Amino acid sequence: MAVYTQVDADDIANFLTDYDVGNIISFKGIAEGVENSNYLLQTDQNHFILTLYEKRVNPDDLPFFLNLMDHLAQKGLNCATPVRDRQGQALKELCGRPAALISFLQGMSINKPTPHHCRQLGQALAQMHNATADFKMTRVNNLSVDGWQNLMDQCIDRADNVIPGLSGILQTEMKWLGDHWPEHLPSGVIHADLFPDNVFFRGDTLSGLIDFYFACTDILAYDLAICLNAWCFETDGSFNITKARNLTRGYHNVRPLSTAEYDSLPLLCRGAAMRFLLTRLYDWLHQVEGATVTVKNPREYLEKLTFHQAITSASAYGLE
Amino acid sequence: MAVYTQVDADDIANFLTDYDVGNIISFKGIAEGVENSNYLLQTDQNHFILTLYEKRVNPDDLPFFLNLMDHLAQKGLNCATPVRDRQGQALKELCGRPAALISFLQGMSINKPTPHHCRQLGQALAQMHNATADFKMTRVNNLSVDGWQNLMDQCIDRADNVIPGLSGILQTEMKWLGDHWPEHLPSGVIHADLFPDNVFFRGDTLSGLIDFYFACTDILAYDLAICLNAWCFETDGSFNITKARNLTRGYHNVRPLSTAEYDSLPLLCRGAAMRFLLTRLYDWLHQVEGATVTVKNPREYLEKLTFHQAITSASAYGLE
Repeated sequence: MAVYTQVDADDIANFLTDYDVGNIISFKGIAEGVENSNYLLQTDQNHFILTLYEKRVNPDDLPFFLNLMDHLAQKGLNCATPVRDRQGQALKELCGRPAALISFLQGMSINKPTPHHCRQLGQALAQMHNATADFKMTRVNNLSVDGWQNLMDQCIDRADNVIPGLSGILQTEMKWLGDHWPEHLPSGVIHADLFPDNVFFRGDTLSGLIDFYFACTDILAYDLAICLNAWCFETDGSFNITKARNLTRGYHNVRPLSTAEYDSLPLLCRGAAMRFLLTRLYDWLHQVEGATVTVKNPREYLEKLTFHQAITSASAYGLE
Repeated sequence: MAVYTQVDADDIANFLTDYDVGNIISFKGIAEGVENSNYLLQTDQNHFILTLYEKRVNPDDLPFFLNLMDHLAQKGLNCATPVRDRQGQALKELCGRPAALISFLQGMSINKPTPHHCRQLGQALAQMHNATADFKMTRVNNLSVDGWQNLMDQCIDRADNVIPGLSGILQTEMKWLGDHWPEHLPSGVIHADLFPDNVFFRGDTLSGLIDFYFACTDILAYDLAICLNAWCFETDGSFNITKARNLTRGYHNVRPLSTAEYDSLPLLCRGAAMRFLLTRLYDWLHQVEGATVTVKNPREYLEKLTFHQAITSASAYGLE
C-alpha cells in the first residue's frame, strides 16, 4: 500500500481545470491499492478519488476498465465511476502517468463478513453480471488456466521451500484443472477480485463495489467461486456453510444458475483457490526485502484448495 | 509515508462510540506523516484525522502536543486540534497504540512557496509564538545542541563516505556552535519543524499549521531560523532574499524581534542548518534497504550551512 507517484497541489489544480467539479479544498494520498497511486480529493462540490495508473497496469486495458465502470453506473449499480472532463474524456494523463478522476463511493469495507453481508454480496454480484450482458468490450483473463500454468512454471522450483510437497500438489492439480476446465458455461464480464476490501457497506447495507482493475471476460460462475473462497472461510480455515448458502442463494435469486453451472461449482472453486494460491506463492517468492507491502502467506489458499478437492456436489455450498 | 497500524471498520466504529461526532461514513488510511499512522474519517457531521502514535513518538510527550494544539485553537489560531470524547479525554487508545481524533484542517501544502506565502508564514509563526506566551507546559528540545552532539557522535565515523571532508566540517561547526549558542534569548514554545508540508493554504491564503510533534520549549527566533532554511532557498541552492525579507518582516510586524534576537539570527540559522544536516545524515546512514520512505540527501543542508557561515549580519535576511 503506497503512493508511487507524488503529485503536488499545483499539478492537481492544473489537472482539475479540465473538469467542472469545483475548486479544490484538500487532497491526501491514500494508502490503498497495491497497484496504483490514489489521492482523495475534496472540492467545494464533492469528494473524488484521483487514480494514477502505475506500471503493473497495462494502459491498453484502461478503456475497458473505465467504460465498464461507466456502463455499470448507467445500469444503476452502485460502483465507483469515472468522471468525464468537459471534452467527455475519462482517461487522462497526470505527472506522466495515465490518470482518471473517479467518483467517491461512501461506505467502508468490512473485515468480518456475516451471513447477512454474504447474501447482499451474492445479489450485487448477480446484478453486476446481469448488467454487463450488453457490454460490448471484452478483455482476456490473463489469470485463467494458461496464466496459472505460466505462474506455476516460475514458482515450481522453489515451491517446496515454502510448503514441503507443494510442487507435487500444484502439478497434479494443474493437470487436472487443465483437463476438466469447462468450455461452454455462460460467460461475460466478471469482477475477478471481489474480496471483502472491494465491497463497501454503510451500516449493514451494501453501498457499492470498487476496484475493477482485474475485471475481464470469463465464466460468470467463476466469479461466484472466487467469492466463495474469499468470503466463506473463517480465519481458522473452517468453511462457513451458512455464509456460503447466503452467498449462493443471494446470487441465484437474481441470476439463476443453470444445471451446468451448478454442477461445475466445485471445479470452479478449485480453480479460484488455485489462482490465488499461485499469485500468493509468486508474490511470496518474489518479495522485496524491507518493502512495506505485506505479502500474504500462500498456505491459506492451499488449505482452501484441499477443502474444495474433497467436495463432490455443489450442495456443499448450500445450493439445492 | 505509510500506515503502520491497520485499523478496521469495527475498530473505528467502536472507538467513535465514546465521541459525539456522528456516524462513520468512510475512512481511508492516508500516506502522510513519517512517524505515525493517519486515517481520514468522514462522518455524517464532519471530517476528522485519526492518528495512532507509533514507536518513534514518546507517549509521555503526547499530553504536551495535544494540549498545545488545544491551547492554540482556543487562542484563535488555525491549526489541527484534538477532539475530546464525552469524558473530556483527547488522548485515547486504539489497537494497542495511543490515539487521538484530530479536527480536519482544510487546505493544501504548497511545493513552490512565493514571497507572498512567506509573508503569511512569518505572520502565522509570530502569532503562534505570541499565543503560547501563557502556555504552562514545557518540553525539552532533544534536537538542540546536546542532541546534535549525540547525533554527530553516531555519524562521524562514516560521514566522509557520504560527503568527503564532512567529518571535519561537522566537528569544527559543532565546537563553534557549542561555544556561541545563546543562553538568554526569549524562549517559549516553538513548532521546530515548520516546513512547507506542514503549512496549509486555501488558494493563496494561509489556512493553518499542522504536525506539532516536534514542538518544544526553545529560543523563539530559532523557529524563524528553521523557516528561513526551509522556505527561502531555491531548488538550485540559491538564497531568495525577497522570500527571506517577507518572512522576517511578516514575523517582525506581529512579534518585533529584539536587538539581541536580530543579532543572533545568522548564528541561529547555522544551528538550524546543522540540525537538519545531522538528522538527514543520520537517516542517510541508517536507511533500511528496500523501504519505501524516501531518505533526503544531507548535502542540501551542508550547502545551507555554508551559506549561513558566510553571513555577518541579519540584514542579509532582509531585516533592517
